[in-house]
Amino acid sequence: MKPSEQRQQFRLRKENGTTSGMCDNYLQANMIILPKDYAFEFLLFCQRNPKSCPIVDVLESGVVEPGVAGADIRTDLPKYRIYRDGKFTEEVHDIQEEWRDDFVTFLIGCSFTFEKALLKEGIALLHQDQNRVVPMYKTNISCEKAGRFEGEMVVSMRALKPNEIEKAVQITEQFQTSHGGPIHIGNPEEIGIYDIHQPDYGESISFDSTERTPVFWACGVTPQNVCVHAKPEIMISHAPGHMLITDQLEEK
Amino acid sequence: MKPSEQRQQFRLRKENGTTSGMCDNYLQANMIILPKDYAFEFLLFCQRNPKSCPIVDVLESGVVEPGVAGADIRTDLPKYRIYRDGKFTEEVHDIQEEWRDDFVTFLIGCSFTFEKALLKEGIALLHQDQNRVVPMYKTNISCEKAGRFEGEMVVSMRALKPNEIEKAVQITEQFQTSHGGPIHIGNPEEIGIYDIHQPDYGESISFDSTERTPVFWACGVTPQNVCVHAKPEIMISHAPGHMLITDQLEEK
Repeated sequence: MKPSEQRQQFRLRKENGTTSGMCDNYLQANMIILPKDYAFEFLLFCQRNPKSCPIVDVLESGVVEPGVAGADIRTDLPKYRIYRDGKFTEEVHDIQEEWRDDFVTFLIGCSFTFEKALLKEGIALLHQDQNRVVPMYKTNISCEKAGRFEGEMVVSMRALKPNEIEKAVQITEQFQTSHGGPIHIGNPEEIGIYDIHQPDYGESISFDSTERTPVFWACGVTPQNVCVHAKPEIMISHAPGHMLITDQLEEK
Repeated sequence: MKPSEQRQQFRLRKENGTTSGMCDNYLQANMIILPKDYAFEFLLFCQRNPKSCPIVDVLESGVVEPGVAGADIRTDLPKYRIYRDGKFTEEVHDIQEEWRDDFVTFLIGCSFTFEKALLKEGIALLHQDQNRVVPMYKTNISCEKAGRFEGEMVVSMRALKPNEIEKAVQITEQFQTSHGGPIHIGNPEEIGIYDIHQPDYGESISFDSTERTPVFWACGVTPQNVCVHAKPEIMISHAPGHMLITDQLEEK
């Protein structure tokens, strides 16, 4: 299916599952919607923390159609989450009733893109082989604060063979709108991760630590966490794994 | 003189001339101050037009000390210009009386940095040899609009010998906070410049067009023009050539 057809399925409520694996080669994006009062500080946060928050597109206040997709962001994602005063309150299938003219929408890159590039180069991804959600961890790496937005970086982990690491670095560094190169290789304790088998988000994966090294990338959970922490009266995001499918082909 | 000493000279009103050539190897920056109501849209404009508006630093509302310099931006530049409702009204030596807690300060890269790198590689700059201000031109290239900020790109021109062009491209592409690589090479009419000897800003330079090709770079006049055009009730900038000298060494 083309992105426009797939988005119509969501809009008409014919489907509402994860977008993982859908519309191959088209860029998917995380979405965060905030009232305009927070927009400058959050955009500055993204500008100061580009690996955690690679900007794909920003929709000015009241705008519902992104530059990167002929979509209506109020209806064309499969599932949304609403947070009020920093607390998750509802999961919904469209946000037309909540929409306000002072809402600013941020589309932020995700790791789907670079994962596909790694696979294409013959680098196996254990979480996919084991049919699990990629493991994600809170770290002790502080993001650079901007106004009310602050917090620690969250990272995703992929365990690679030693001879794959350099290639993985080179490949992922090319994808600036998909978190770029790794932020740490090798020693989880150095970034505040003390049990690799107890991820804070996603699922633990099994690997032989004599054969594989954990490699950590910045992760889209970071901007979501710092937004929740800022406790805006309302914030809306995609539900995890239920992204906006854009009309833009992935970078090469 | 060190940047901190030089800034003190300005603060104590012992000097107020151009910063051109001062504090070799330290990054200098253009400055634009806007009320917070405009900050999100202007930051988005910079994000969408990175060659015209390479961000060096952004100071959140009310903040007067940049991350890149132990300075007070209200007193440590040699000369400021104040614009009210889109009209230039005064040139002043400090802005303490005008300062408001909702002011957001943007520091934007300038071309001093890449010019030095070109000279170091043996590429002569005619405007320096002829002791003139670099010629700058309005173009027909539209910037990507963001909210109330829009307008055409302004470019600076340096006439180079054919065998210098490739090297100049490679050098300037490395300086992302100094406008990056050229935006056009060779045919001024293609970008809406019909008389190379009638620049819109700066001064005309003499060169033999059979021996040298005009090369155009994005220029810091662009953000200043789009800000004036947006007609904020107040906007403050450095006076042309009277920049903030930072404590940051230039990129290599």
